[in-house]
Amino acid sequence: MAEKLSIFKIGGFVIDDMTELDYFLKDFASIQSKKMLVHGGGKWVSKMSQKLGLDVNMIEGRRITDAETLEVVKMMLPGVANKNIVAILQKYKCNALGFTGADGGLILARRRPPIGNIDYGYVGDIVNVKAKKLSEIIDLSYTPVFTALTHDGMGQLLNTNADTIASSMAIELSKYYETELYYCLEKPGVLFDINNDNSVIKVLTRSVYNSYRHSGAIHSGMIPKIDNAFDALDKGVAKIHICHYKDIGRVHTTKPGIGTLIIDS
Amino acid sequence: MAEKLSIFKIGGFVIDDMTELDYFLKDFASIQSKKMLVHGGGKWVSKMSQKLGLDVNMIEGRRITDAETLEVVKMMLPGVANKNIVAILQKYKCNALGFTGADGGLILARRRPPIGNIDYGYVGDIVNVKAKKLSEIIDLSYTPVFTALTHDGMGQLLNTNADTIASSMAIELSKYYETELYYCLEKPGVLFDINNDNSVIKVLTRSVYNSYRHSGAIHSGMIPKIDNAFDALDKGVAKIHICHYKDIGRVHTTKPGIGTLIIDS
Repeated sequence: MAEKLSIFKIGGFVIDDMTELDYFLKDFASIQSKKMLVHGGGKWVSKMSQKLGLDVNMIEGRRITDAETLEVVKMMLPGVANKNIVAILQKYKCNALGFTGADGGLILARRRPPIGNIDYGYVGDIVNVKAKKLSEIIDLSYTPVFTALTHDGMGQLLNTNADTIASSMAIELSKYYETELYYCLEKPGVLFDINNDNSVIKVLTRSVYNSYRHSGAIHSGMIPKIDNAFDALDKGVAKIHICHYKDIGRVHTTKPGIGTLIIDS
Repeated sequence: MAEKLSIFKIGGFVIDDMTELDYFLKDFASIQSKKMLVHGGGKWVSKMSQKLGLDVNMIEGRRITDAETLEVVKMMLPGVANKNIVAILQKYKCNALGFTGADGGLILARRRPPIGNIDYGYVGDIVNVKAKKLSEIIDLSYTPVFTALTHDGMGQLLNTNADTIASSMAIELSKYYETELYYCLEKPGVLFDINNDNSVIKVLTRSVYNSYRHSGAIHSGMIPKIDNAFDALDKGVAKIHICHYKDIGRVHTTKPGIGTLIIDS
């Protein structure tokens, strides 16, 4: 049987608070299986953009990444966020190694063409992931820490959705490992009622998802995340969990019942 | 005989100009031996600090790195500069992989204690380099691209002189390779007369250096660089060159006579 590899994705809310980040990374470091981290940091990008007097343009939750905004993305994601994470993980004896998709040429992307009247700018859609090369690094006992930047192979860096990076890597790495994917949120899982943290949907099958989606119980921001999750299950990922970032130790090691387990049935 | 590893160090002047940077990296990518790049980017740090309204404090050419300046260092070095370099090298089919000394725990440093009345802030002096771990990555056909940040093993990143990183790595890696170190400048080598680019000192022995140093022909900024170079030769580095960044292809492949060759005699 293939060895287990656990891939965790965290968003900007954790990265933004150094105390919370430290707690999260301590828990992450204590996980004994092979593992990887994927992080965004959009809030930081927005804050620094404002500080530098740049406009922040979002359309349906997606950032318009013009040339100046891309510079801020480079500053805040592989710069501040990734390096803080790597240094803290080293403190907790986790041998972290930071990556963008350009490093080692591991994630090739294509600049997204304008959709209708909307030009997303320097935003990349993933073309391929060099999973074999990455597995060689993981097998040298490194813990890769990826941030949400890829490249086009022609020298251009591209802002790329971190959820998609996490699921694409989980899919490709499932050729070499039994991959598990954890989307870590500020909420305890997928909620039936967004205002009630006790309404966690423990198990989400495709049919349940479709009914909740049609009833509107599962809201818009969660839809692409869950679509990504089902796609990843179809393509070989062994297990997908959506959980609170404070629960990663428990969700990873103990019996089911924490967070939302996504099941393809 | 050990395989050759060529280590190139470039400063902020190359990084600052995207056209020059692209030319330099094209030449670098075309070098066929195993290789590594170490880069600073101090000018960018100063520019961004000013943009953000921070004071730039230098004492004898060394940056005082307070907490806010360290954030700018993280933005500009592993963020913008390192990622631009990695993406351009990928374009030229050089399999670059970016690093700070925190990544993979490869360079451990100690925060410099205040010297007299001067507190340099978050500045690190190198304690050790994990050369064996780095050689494993090089042997997977990656070209490491290091920037001037290290860590203290307790979660703190530290600004560290790029010349010293380059020489420390050349020394430690000489256990596994025949290491060559190239300091790439905007000048064609060490000049006898700083105002005359035709006055390159072709070969600099320790005795010649001492006499030029005492006569004042070799100026203050060059002294720590050359001291580093002789120290590196003493400790196992096979060859050290100081040359123009436009000459790296020629200086690496052709007969001597370009730039300044440092010889320990």
